Amino acid sequence: MRYSPQDLPLTHPADVEDKKLEARTWFESLQNQIIARFEALEDAIEDRSSAAQTCLKSINHPDADVGATAGRFERTPWKKDEGKGGGGTMAMMKGRVFEKVGVHTSTVFGEFSEEMRKAVPGAKDDPRYWASGISLIAHMQNPNVPAVHMNTRMVVTSSQWFGGGADLTPVLDRRRTQDDADTVDFHKAMEDALAGHEQSDYDMYKTWCDDYFYLPQRDEMRGIGGIFYDYLRSTKDGSGWHDDLAMTKDVGTGFLDIYAQLVERNMMDAWTIEDREEQLIRRGRYVEFNLLYDRGTIFGLKTGGNIDSILSSMPPMVKWP
Amino acid sequence: MRYSPQDLPLTHPADVEDKKLEARTWFESLQNQIIARFEALEDAIEDRSSAAQTCLKSINHPDADVGATAGRFERTPWKKDEGKGGGGTMAMMKGRVFEKVGVHTSTVFGEFSEEMRKAVPGAKDDPRYWASGISLIAHMQNPNVPAVHMNTRMVVTSSQWFGGGADLTPVLDRRRTQDDADTVDFHKAMEDALAGHEQSDYDMYKTWCDDYFYLPQRDEMRGIGGIFYDYLRSTKDGSGWHDDLAMTKDVGTGFLDIYAQLVERNMMDAWTIEDREEQLIRRGRYVEFNLLYDRGTIFGLKTGGNIDSILSSMPPMVKWP
Repeated sequence: MRYSPQDLPLTHPADVEDKKLEARTWFESLQNQIIARFEALEDAIEDRSSAAQTCLKSINHPDADVGATAGRFERTPWKKDEGKGGGGTMAMMKGRVFEKVGVHTSTVFGEFSEEMRKAVPGAKDDPRYWASGISLIAHMQNPNVPAVHMNTRMVVTSSQWFGGGADLTPVLDRRRTQDDADTVDFHKAMEDALAGHEQSDYDMYKTWCDDYFYLPQRDEMRGIGGIFYDYLRSTKDGSGWHDDLAMTKDVGTGFLDIYAQLVERNMMDAWTIEDREEQLIRRGRYVEFNLLYDRGTIFGLKTGGNIDSILSSMPPMVKWP
Repeated sequence: MRYSPQDLPLTHPADVEDKKLEARTWFESLQNQIIARFEALEDAIEDRSSAAQTCLKSINHPDADVGATAGRFERTPWKKDEGKGGGGTMAMMKGRVFEKVGVHTSTVFGEFSEEMRKAVPGAKDDPRYWASGISLIAHMQNPNVPAVHMNTRMVVTSSQWFGGGADLTPVLDRRRTQDDADTVDFHKAMEDALAGHEQSDYDMYKTWCDDYFYLPQRDEMRGIGGIFYDYLRSTKDGSGWHDDLAMTKDVGTGFLDIYAQLVERNMMDAWTIEDREEQLIRRGRYVEFNLLYDRGTIFGLKTGGNIDSILSSMPPMVKWP
């Protein structure tokens, strides 16, 4: 059984304004932790300029400089409705390990459109909403390193809940298996992140992820899975909200630890032009999923979100041969 | 005023089975004409292997062979519901002028799902449909040559109508203007194609195209326009259906003549790495439009159409930097 919007109480936890601030502060702190760790990975790899790059340089090709210097994040603050609807901070990096990675936080509020009111729990009679969260998508230079997505968020309407998850997308068919070491370790890390939280249900979250990140038109999974959950609202007296925030934090730090390990493990492995081709084609499925099915993308576009931020998840280069 | 689904009579023209065959025969004939003309363009350009390609060849890069030989279409027949729902012929070419072009015909029939029945004229009380048409999208090697889209179709439910259009997408900002010679000539050709048909309304079709091929999330047009029409059902006694097929034919041949001219005019022009970058980024907007908004793509996916055929319109290489 999954959590269902119908099960959410149409009430707020006590001191909801304090809790909004606490959640927002966490998401922004996690953004900083991720940025520091990813920039350290950019420093850890040596210049990987190669014969191919020397050749590309000779024809003034834009890919010629790939690998020359360690990437750094660029932070761009943005405002919704001229600041009257909150805003966020986009942080993008184009580096030599991370071909394109976005780690964005946002805290937005306003009133849902008629269309959205029908779809969002607790919005039917009162259209006001507040939402804060962090969202990350990484597309990597080396096809041996899987792409990844992570998002956690707190939502307040006339109800309140948390949602989120993390999932891994290896881009080479030979690595897109359930017994690949990366897959095994990623699943284990997600299970461990939830282990101390009695309101969690790893098996359910894992199945939910498999079902969600699925492309019906291709009859295939986007990646190898992970976890996905929504409408999380623990009802234990006194501690329910704090329990949910604690779980949110463990998902975030658990994700960061395992993904940094997977990057380090794979980033120096040799790859071929054929591997790169396979990666570019696999990224096409990512685009198809995000534009055809992803609720976050569609939510963002329909609520007048920041277009640069929403579509910053698009891969830097893609092929549909 | 646009044609509206509500204005369509819930009847068929006389001899509708003969008319289905006649329309289908036309679409397949046009497919053959287009293939012959486009292959001739592949022959007309000389091998454009360059210093850059020699360099790419030295590193075994897949782009190294671009331009070496003239492209040829590959035809792939497919069946819907194991042939019980009709089928079609995909024709794809990856050449040295046309980087990736698809010219597809299909004639499909069946029953609409509940969801589709609400959306399609004449399907509310009787879910059966029949549709035949041709659809073309061309992505070009040389950024000086605009991308293009053309589609015409005949649809039968408990009603019957024609729809279609053609629109041009220059991929360089300096060519995406209303006074560029390509733009002027393309608009003129579409106007001329409609000129002899009293049921047509060029100004309305042009506005409809501008409105349809528009990306709200980017607040920009996909291309420079063209024509778009739907729910066309001439009611003149005796000749109505024949008038509409005649117009459909003129749109198809008018499109082919002008586009072949535009390709020939631009395909030998020099271009830079920066032009190529701009082309690859512009193609991203094309992907966004097709997956977020295009009715044809969404219709195809929801009616269990051929996934390879539907998504064959995706550009061969795209960048979201």
